[in-house]
Amino acid sequence: MYMGRIVFSGLLLSYSIAAFSQKEDSIFIKRLSDEILTNGKAYDNLRDLTKKIGGRLTGSPQMVKAEQWGLKTLQESGADKAWLQECMVPHWIRGGKDEAEARYNAGLSQARNTQPSSKKLNVLALGNSVGTGAKGILANVILVNSFNELETKKQEIPGSIVFYNYKFNETFVSPFDAYVDAVRYRAQGPSEAAKYGALAVVVRSMSHSTDNNPHTGSLRYDSAYQKIPAVALGLRDADWLSEELMKRKVSIYMKTMGKFLPDTIGHNVIGELRGTEFPDQYITVGGHLDSWDPAEGAHDDGTGVVQTIEILRAFKMIGFKPKHTIRFVLFANEENGLRGGNRYAEEAKAKNDKHLFALESDAGGFTPRGFGFNATDEQVAKVQRWKDLLSPYGGSALVKGGDGADIGPLQKAYNIPAAGLNPDPQRYFDYHHSPNDVFENVNKRELELGAINMAALLYLVDKYGL
Amino acid sequence: MYMGRIVFSGLLLSYSIAAFSQKEDSIFIKRLSDEILTNGKAYDNLRDLTKKIGGRLTGSPQMVKAEQWGLKTLQESGADKAWLQECMVPHWIRGGKDEAEARYNAGLSQARNTQPSSKKLNVLALGNSVGTGAKGILANVILVNSFNELETKKQEIPGSIVFYNYKFNETFVSPFDAYVDAVRYRAQGPSEAAKYGALAVVVRSMSHSTDNNPHTGSLRYDSAYQKIPAVALGLRDADWLSEELMKRKVSIYMKTMGKFLPDTIGHNVIGELRGTEFPDQYITVGGHLDSWDPAEGAHDDGTGVVQTIEILRAFKMIGFKPKHTIRFVLFANEENGLRGGNRYAEEAKAKNDKHLFALESDAGGFTPRGFGFNATDEQVAKVQRWKDLLSPYGGSALVKGGDGADIGPLQKAYNIPAAGLNPDPQRYFDYHHSPNDVFENVNKRELELGAINMAALLYLVDKYGL
Repeated sequence: MYMGRIVFSGLLLSYSIAAFSQKEDSIFIKRLSDEILTNGKAYDNLRDLTKKIGGRLTGSPQMVKAEQWGLKTLQESGADKAWLQECMVPHWIRGGKDEAEARYNAGLSQARNTQPSSKKLNVLALGNSVGTGAKGILANVILVNSFNELETKKQEIPGSIVFYNYKFNETFVSPFDAYVDAVRYRAQGPSEAAKYGALAVVVRSMSHSTDNNPHTGSLRYDSAYQKIPAVALGLRDADWLSEELMKRKVSIYMKTMGKFLPDTIGHNVIGELRGTEFPDQYITVGGHLDSWDPAEGAHDDGTGVVQTIEILRAFKMIGFKPKHTIRFVLFANEENGLRGGNRYAEEAKAKNDKHLFALESDAGGFTPRGFGFNATDEQVAKVQRWKDLLSPYGGSALVKGGDGADIGPLQKAYNIPAAGLNPDPQRYFDYHHSPNDVFENVNKRELELGAINMAALLYLVDKYGL
Repeated sequence: MYMGRIVFSGLLLSYSIAAFSQKEDSIFIKRLSDEILTNGKAYDNLRDLTKKIGGRLTGSPQMVKAEQWGLKTLQESGADKAWLQECMVPHWIRGGKDEAEARYNAGLSQARNTQPSSKKLNVLALGNSVGTGAKGILANVILVNSFNELETKKQEIPGSIVFYNYKFNETFVSPFDAYVDAVRYRAQGPSEAAKYGALAVVVRSMSHSTDNNPHTGSLRYDSAYQKIPAVALGLRDADWLSEELMKRKVSIYMKTMGKFLPDTIGHNVIGELRGTEFPDQYITVGGHLDSWDPAEGAHDDGTGVVQTIEILRAFKMIGFKPKHTIRFVLFANEENGLRGGNRYAEEAKAKNDKHLFALESDAGGFTPRGFGFNATDEQVAKVQRWKDLLSPYGGSALVKGGDGADIGPLQKAYNIPAAGLNPDPQRYFDYHHSPNDVFENVNKRELELGAINMAALLYLVDKYGL
């Protein structure tokens, strides 16, 4: 595009100003936006978190560093008070480099070439999985495309490695729908295979990316069955393996070293902006500080963390004093236990604190499209009356359904409305739980626009209630 | 994010079905979407165009290759007829590698260190600019932040290099607004400086990216003044240079070799899907095949080209027969002349063809947000009644204002409604006219969703008129 026929987008001018208060609100939100787009620290903070600390698996030394970084950054961003809230967390470790190799007789159909071939596979052990032991596991591979097919092949399963090749359904416009549809193979697949005597599991990665990166994530063992090792496989290798298995038998050798150490001490990191009228009534906003280990936890959920801190910084910089106390929370252990979110809700209940609303960003630092609300129809209708205030910044889709894993326990404990930021979803599963979830794949302005919409929503909830 | 509290986005279910025809339309558009998301060739075609052919400056051998590729791909995608439409095009060449170096006495304030220092600058000559000659130009730099400041410094300008350091206004939510605001310094800046006797111009790149890539693009010489060389400078170097100039005098040595060769022959590449009821009435959809040379012209406008072809392919695959003839046009010479768009309109007028509507994609292959219309209020109101049909695929913002440079001459010649796809704008100016406008920065699904929304709009316009 050159310059010929561009017109001003005019979004800022297009919404009708219904009343003085709406005009006042739109002016305030524009100030927030200008502050964040001009002086924002979210991008620099994300660079520090991802490049100086890196992946932050629960229980890891990096997570301890991240807690200290979070506490310091909340303090420097203007928190009236900031502290660590202790909680016991699970301590799963990867234990070494995951390895897998396919072995097969490539030339079975050609008399002159029957020597075994092999191909390295791009894998990552699933979170919470047991290891294979130092010797690894070598077994024949059985491909299944579904749990139904597993059932029909159950005679072949004992002593084998089950390969779940269930694909992301590309016809879903939102990849989150495809994830919800497919993730059972990662979560329950290993125990379902163990039920029939499988030795290990290989799962097609939960993604539709065009590269070959494996995508890890938690499994959930069913205690009724043997715990067996399980890895996620990159999509190009999964395609190769499934094609190969149409032609010949393939064995896989795999070695993983995952294990649980005893539970250890972790922390939620909490900063507070004291309310002027109702200091003992709380609004919570947060993201989770832990991440998977293969990369830097940039989109999952470094962006939610730095957006949370950015909202605090921007509120302080423009002198906003909320009526209610706003808590900025960097949650512990979202990925493989949710102990941070549970602890936060438990302590609130134990102290009999009054909570009004909670907001989370945990769907990536992409251009915001709106928010999903776990709320009543009346509450959602009230929020939708703010649409013209949020639309200029992209947050126009205010829909029922959604919140966030970490704020879920608080939402349930109090039965309060809760919401999650919904960014554009198309790229999320290219990076999710994968070696390429790195700082370089986050766009500065997309990240900042998320913080702007979140800050605006918090301002409106604080002012008008929900 | 793990998996805890994701809910189905439900977008596909949320729109009310007002009438049978709307239901029929929604089913048809879903078929289009499924075809493009499942069997789409746009991404593979873009890989071929960008990686096998590369940058496609008007008049270059690559552009000739691209025309042949476009013709073949339109034919293979099911065009009833495809041809090259000849037009004379300007033939600007870069002529060599652009060079620039800042020279200064780093230690002027320290007696012991007064030897000259130098720093290489990341520059690209502006399109259509004259070269410096083989010896280059060495001159003192005068920084100005605006044309007003140029005026106030006019005594210093003769014999100098003017450095326009006007920045993208970050407070605009849409970067296109920032581009419209700043691009005059690239387009008119060189002649404005020549008016006061400048020898050459350095322009801060039209971008807000976090990297140091220079962004080229056309200038427009005012024939009243000397044509002087001009380069775009990467943002980090622009920041460095402006800081340095606060401390001391800086000279720049620059060498560029740009020049015009005689006009040469170029072509629009046109494919046609014949209308069943009104074969002599035309609807046009297109993007431009030419690009700047420093990269691969991926987002500008390879994505518009492959989306155009993809719509044809998908229409044919699902057996859609339009009532009117649809023309799929890969335009020549958008970037530095618009000769392709002008030729297309001229020939239509000369033949007295009947044209109804035109659509262009030339704002990048990002997630679609909607369309901008150069149309009457009544026509825009009619389009807005289709909002529920497009929203599930992202194209919900149907606004007045916009179309595309290449279809502009047709729109003017016939005074017909015209539209441009509006993708998410945040990343566009990270890549625009820059060495990183490459295939790797395009996301497959974002690209495909653009094609889906365009195909759906064409289907609706063909069926219901506008």
